Amino acid sequence: MGFIVKVFRYPKTSCEFLPVSLLETVRAARRAAQILAQLSPAERDRALLAVATALEAAQADILAANAVDMAAAADLPKALQARLALKPSKMAGMAAGVRDVARLPDPLNQRQIHRELDAGLILERRTCPLGTIAAIFEARPDAVPQIASLAIKSGNGAILKGGKEATHSCAAIFAAIRQGLAASTVPPDALQLISTREETVALLALDRELDLIVPRGSNEFVRYIQDHTRIAVLGHADGICHLYVDGAADPAKAIALAVDAKTQYPAACNAIETLLVDAAIAPTLLPPIAQALREQGVELRGDERAGALCPMNPATAADWATEYCDLILAVKVVDGLEAALTHIQTYGSRHTEAIVTEDAAQAETFLNTVDAAGVYWNCSTRFADGFRYGFGAEVGISTQKMPPRGPVGLEGLVTYKYRLVGQGQTVAQYTGPSARPFHHRDLPL
Amino acid sequence: MGFIVKVFRYPKTSCEFLPVSLLETVRAARRAAQILAQLSPAERDRALLAVATALEAAQADILAANAVDMAAAADLPKALQARLALKPSKMAGMAAGVRDVARLPDPLNQRQIHRELDAGLILERRTCPLGTIAAIFEARPDAVPQIASLAIKSGNGAILKGGKEATHSCAAIFAAIRQGLAASTVPPDALQLISTREETVALLALDRELDLIVPRGSNEFVRYIQDHTRIAVLGHADGICHLYVDGAADPAKAIALAVDAKTQYPAACNAIETLLVDAAIAPTLLPPIAQALREQGVELRGDERAGALCPMNPATAADWATEYCDLILAVKVVDGLEAALTHIQTYGSRHTEAIVTEDAAQAETFLNTVDAAGVYWNCSTRFADGFRYGFGAEVGISTQKMPPRGPVGLEGLVTYKYRLVGQGQTVAQYTGPSARPFHHRDLPL
Repeated sequence: MGFIVKVFRYPKTSCEFLPVSLLETVRAARRAAQILAQLSPAERDRALLAVATALEAAQADILAANAVDMAAAADLPKALQARLALKPSKMAGMAAGVRDVARLPDPLNQRQIHRELDAGLILERRTCPLGTIAAIFEARPDAVPQIASLAIKSGNGAILKGGKEATHSCAAIFAAIRQGLAASTVPPDALQLISTREETVALLALDRELDLIVPRGSNEFVRYIQDHTRIAVLGHADGICHLYVDGAADPAKAIALAVDAKTQYPAACNAIETLLVDAAIAPTLLPPIAQALREQGVELRGDERAGALCPMNPATAADWATEYCDLILAVKVVDGLEAALTHIQTYGSRHTEAIVTEDAAQAETFLNTVDAAGVYWNCSTRFADGFRYGFGAEVGISTQKMPPRGPVGLEGLVTYKYRLVGQGQTVAQYTGPSARPFHHRDLPL
Repeated sequence: MGFIVKVFRYPKTSCEFLPVSLLETVRAARRAAQILAQLSPAERDRALLAVATALEAAQADILAANAVDMAAAADLPKALQARLALKPSKMAGMAAGVRDVARLPDPLNQRQIHRELDAGLILERRTCPLGTIAAIFEARPDAVPQIASLAIKSGNGAILKGGKEATHSCAAIFAAIRQGLAASTVPPDALQLISTREETVALLALDRELDLIVPRGSNEFVRYIQDHTRIAVLGHADGICHLYVDGAADPAKAIALAVDAKTQYPAACNAIETLLVDAAIAPTLLPPIAQALREQGVELRGDERAGALCPMNPATAADWATEYCDLILAVKVVDGLEAALTHIQTYGSRHTEAIVTEDAAQAETFLNTVDAAGVYWNCSTRFADGFRYGFGAEVGISTQKMPPRGPVGLEGLVTYKYRLVGQGQTVAQYTGPSARPFHHRDLPL
């Protein structure tokens, strides 16, 4: 296995740190993370407060670095420029976000099981850090303090890789974070910034060194990561969410929820891509829903029955499987709940699915039957978000089946260990004809 | 993607079920699992009791089928024959095991989060089945009722594949299980038996249809599965466990634990492969430990310092990385806890690691620092087991970092969904300058 050997230097705000190879960079993070993992919650929180202060102190340097990136990005799409741009208000938000993470409950050393297997043989399951994670994200410089603070809070080392358009901004923010850590007991090496695509690709082979990859970016990018590594990946490629308007839907709720779920932020993964309307109510309800969506600039693509009720572009088979990330919505008239469930099972990406109905039994069937991380009744799919769920900070959204599933907070950055403490017990004593029995008595957590 | 198309028939005890392709087999399980998932706990438990009764009723057929397998296995290793052989006592154990699973607490519909995000907007996180799992195991026919009962209890469909040496035994047991289910509300199609290696390989590609693979078998086999599928895998390839005898160890405990952890069942993944002895105590303690191990027929392979204290075969670098699964133990003299921790970090497979010491501070450092699913103090690594932990039934042992980690009970076969129930709330109401705040008030679970 070959690792890319290179020397890279951070821009002017950087410090003494000069990794000579990616493997060394990752190993430095691992070693530092082992120290970080042993710190008290108060020490980790104090380090976060120091980071927030350092970010504020470095504001001028960070804005200057961002100006360099912005100048180079002048010809890039406006949406990318908007994500890239740092203003003083966004800077204040970054520091506030780090302080918010400091205030979250400690995710480490939480006892989940406490059980006496037999007299003097005590089992505990306690949460602990994963180890070292890699977070790969787009040209969004504010992701650097966000992920850095989640990593510190959860006792993990982190390798951060931002989009290349944000190189100077990320480096300046990262330098400030490390300066903050230098004033704390958290070893600054626990966080490392890498900058090239080659390093990202090389990271994927480091399954002995990295415990989790958190990719944020396009569907293609996330799928590439998933297909090219043995490291656990927390993320999701597709977000094909549906809103099913049942025959017993309240019309006002149906219209409001369709508009919100499609238009409130169309590029989000929890925005809907397909509207399913029960044939029993479609003749009266589809026209006003369509009108409300069009007033928000949404292009509708319907199946034959939808088009017959309400002229719109025809949908092709590909539309049911497309995440538009745009003001486009596929529309299908279905014969009731069963047909809606079949469509969702076929095309849904197990992210978030919603029903609008006043019929509690229909809703219950929908919530029980649909296989998705989020199943919603009479509310917008756009609520699928760690902050809205009250997790305080979001690592990402997972559409895998095994937990952690759906919006993932700090819980996704911790694992657990079983601690068994005895007085010399052997398994032979608990085996065979005269075996001692276990009594498996749960103790207070 | 091509699927293997074949027609196969179960032996005489089988019923009407004749899948024509693997994909159809898996889809039949999925459809049936959707019905199974909606059944009440009482219905699932009644089905398990019917299965236990059916296994008892089919005892003669099953023993006859097993005799066919045993006759064909006459030239195979004795250990394989021992796993393969079914005696009336093992048959009684199978039925009792199914009834034990019925008595376990229901793993489904358990509320983990119950939170009012805002007035009339209620979030719940509830456990639910994974969907459909595939379990691939060796020539151990009693794994069929074990895994089948765990699948039914947890509301999952299951594709079962036994070792080819156990073909007739597995088919007869499976037919009895289906007969039991036919007398219950659980659709028998929820469980499917496949029999060829080609089908196993084809399963690995069905990532849209299968939610988890549970492989049980050799290291090479598990690693092959892990490397050839995008489906989540619950299992472990390596079990390289260590016992560290600290300078402050109680000699009697050290001797008893070394003997138990190596010899009580040397082929188990939680048996130790390497003994680390603190140089401070090695001169007095290594000789009696070595003698006790040799009395149990253990071959010792030591580093130079161990060999100087106590003549033994020399260990090579490969020994530290070898899972012997046999009465062989590598022995190394280390300079205290730090050196032991470094060795374990380098060579351990994150399974289970133990320290023998009377020094609580040394023990605490060990338990906190070692990165493994199980960290033990003064007890045998052989306790790493779902039954001994009190989980009632074991799906397997996982050495991955993310939960589920270590011995996994029914918890490993369930996931969760977030249910959000509102009254028409949109995200737009909670966004922007006049945003409604969330109040995130936890409700009773």
